[in-house]
Formats: sequence, structure tokens, C-alpha cells
Amino acid sequence: MLSPAHLAVVAAALLLAVRPPLPALAARPIVVVPIVVAAAGKPAPTEAAATARWLAAQNTWGVLSNVVSYSDGVPGESHGIPYFYLTTLDPTARDALEDERTSFTLSEFPLGTCGKIDPENPTCAKLTLTGKLKLIDPQSSEADLAKAALFTKHPEMKGWPKNHHFQIFKLEIENIFLIDWFGGPKPISPTEYLEYGKNQALLKSS
Amino acid sequence: MLSPAHLAVVAAALLLAVRPPLPALAARPIVVVPIVVAAAGKPAPTEAAATARWLAAQNTWGVLSNVVSYSDGVPGESHGIPYFYLTTLDPTARDALEDERTSFTLSEFPLGTCGKIDPENPTCAKLTLTGKLKLIDPQSSEADLAKAALFTKHPEMKGWPKNHHFQIFKLEIENIFLIDWFGGPKPISPTEYLEYGKNQALLKSS
Repeated sequence: MLSPAHLAVVAAALLLAVRPPLPALAARPIVVVPIVVAAAGKPAPTEAAATARWLAAQNTWGVLSNVVSYSDGVPGESHGIPYFYLTTLDPTARDALEDERTSFTLSEFPLGTCGKIDPENPTCAKLTLTGKLKLIDPQSSEADLAKAALFTKHPEMKGWPKNHHFQIFKLEIENIFLIDWFGGPKPISPTEYLEYGKNQALLKSS
Repeated sequence: MLSPAHLAVVAAALLLAVRPPLPALAARPIVVVPIVVAAAGKPAPTEAAATARWLAAQNTWGVLSNVVSYSDGVPGESHGIPYFYLTTLDPTARDALEDERTSFTLSEFPLGTCGKIDPENPTCAKLTLTGKLKLIDPQSSEADLAKAALFTKHPEMKGWPKNHHFQIFKLEIENIFLIDWFGGPKPISPTEYLEYGKNQALLKSS
């Protein structure tokens, strides 16, 4: 039987097939990257990587030493890598340039899907991605992708003051800590997390 | 002119005057502690301590290396000190017992009062309390206060499994980092933050 996560991927593939290319990505050759669209319900607790990717795709903010906005892709196209738009006027970016080690924490609670369950209850999922906060070369194609991801989910960013010198950062994920059920954190490797879409795509096409 | 924060305190005083004592606190001699009831709107950006206390009073969860529930008082009686109910089955409490230095971050965004403003916009307030996570003696009167604070805001905690050995912790605040407007973080001392209610009470009675 297909799980909700599988159904979401299938539904997304159908949607993408009829959707015109996105303006921000249309100007450069489109590299077909594995994607996960987790717009449907929360994946089952047996699917740890799917749940982690769902949390990353659905949230728009988290805690990275301070509260920051992020995006892991344009709506419906989640890559799993959190991109940030930060200014060194804020200590978060200043600290990152001095010591890039950081962790980024997301909660399911603000999504509303925990219902009446307490935010600390293990079934109300929590994800902490630990790794290095890296500055992205503004001339790179990754910067284009990150900008499209950020500006679609956070439209007001486009108008943020030029003289505040906002820069694009990404979290290079080294460790993943997910709690989404009883019995302690689930072991997910960064590869498992990042390639979750790829595996699903292979599964789908097989 | 009275600010919204002052009005909230006045309104709270009126409410408290007609309210019966709380069952959890009624059994022991009631020490009248300075309180802030910030149930009304967000304080003005000129009132940094009031805003920090409002964030602490209104939220029920935040990030303390992981997502945790907390309470700074029974509903309507905020003391500003975050109390936690943690088990050493979770790394947050285990880490705290090894190294008590920590920070606790809250966002205004989940309260819904940021409206369409982006979570990273400086006018959508963020509070980081840095300090030491301390285990509370379960026999102390502070433990009674903390339990009442936690169990009223997080009713399911009362039923959490006994064999998980949940313990009460508090954050001993050493440093406060508040962003609630343009122009960088606001300097607030722990005393200013913790005694905010006291000052308001003095102001009110003068």
C-alpha cells in the first residue's frame, strides 16, 4: 500500500507535469533535481526521512541561534537544504562568519498538525539539523535557486533594504536529530535525508 | 497616557481582585509576588522589558537545544522565569545535567500577532534568554509554583509516564537578547526583565 508520503510524491509529479516552468528558474538550463513535494499529510512515524523532509518543506521559520526565516525550495519543490537570507547587522550572520558550526531547529507545532497534543509530546515532531552555515557565492546557480526558494516563500525579502547587505547562506547538514514518535530520536543520515526525493522518484518510476 | 502594557497590568489587577485563589497555590501561604499579566496586546516597541515579558507570558513552547514546552506562570500570572518539565530520556535534560549553560529562544510568530509580517522581520519580535538550566528541588515551594505553572498551560504533562522520571528545571537568566523593532537588539538586564511587574505595581500604586 502506498503511504501518504508516496501519494504526495505521486500527486506532485502529476501537478508538475502540467505546470509551466517557474520564471526564476526558466532563464538557465533546468537541471532536473530530485524533489519531494510534501504538501499532503504528515508521513507515517515509520518513515523518518519522509517526516524530516516534510517538516523542512512545510515550515518557513526555525531557530538558528535566533529566529530566522528560511526556505528549502520554491513552494512544492523541496530540496531539504535550508537557505537563509541574513545580514551581518544581525549577530546570527556575524557569528556564522566567525564560527560556521550551528544547529537549526524546527517544530511541527506551528504547522497546526499536532492538534491538541502538547508541543513537547514526542508525537509532535521536532527536527534539529546540525552542520555548517555556509555563505553562497551570489553569482552561482545555487544562489539563483536559493533566491527563488526564499523570495517565493518570503515575498517581503525582495524589498529588504539594499544597504543592509543581505547575503544567502545555506546549512550544510552533517547530523540529523528527529523525534516524531515514542522511543527516542530516529537515526537519519544526511544522504538518506537529502536523497529522500531521489529514492521516491526511483521507486515511482520502477 | 497609559501604554497597552500598563493597561494590561491594571486590567489584570482588577481581574485578580475578583478571582478566587488558585487551588494549586491555596494550600500553602501565598507570598504576593510581583506579577505581570500580559494578556492584552503587544507592548509598544519603546517598552523593551514589557515586550520581553509579554513574549515569555504568551508563548507555551520555545527552542532550548530542542523544542520544549515551558511555562513562566499559571495563565495570567507571569513571573518571567521559564520552567520546564524534562526527562533525561531526552538529550536536552541529559545535556543540561552535564553542562548547564544554555539559551532559550522564543518567537512572536506562532502567537499570530505578526500578521503578514515575515518571521525574520525585526518588528516580529524574537527573544533569546541565555543562562543556566537548573534542576529544581522537587520538595521546594518553587517546585509547587513551577508545577502549577506547567500543568495549567500543559495539562497533558500531569499524565506523562511516571517511569520516565520527568523533573522540573528552570532557566536562571543571565543575558537577554530582544529584537522587536529596527535598530538592533534592545539592552535589557535580567533584573529589569524579572522586576518588570514589580515596577509596574509600584507605578500603579503611586
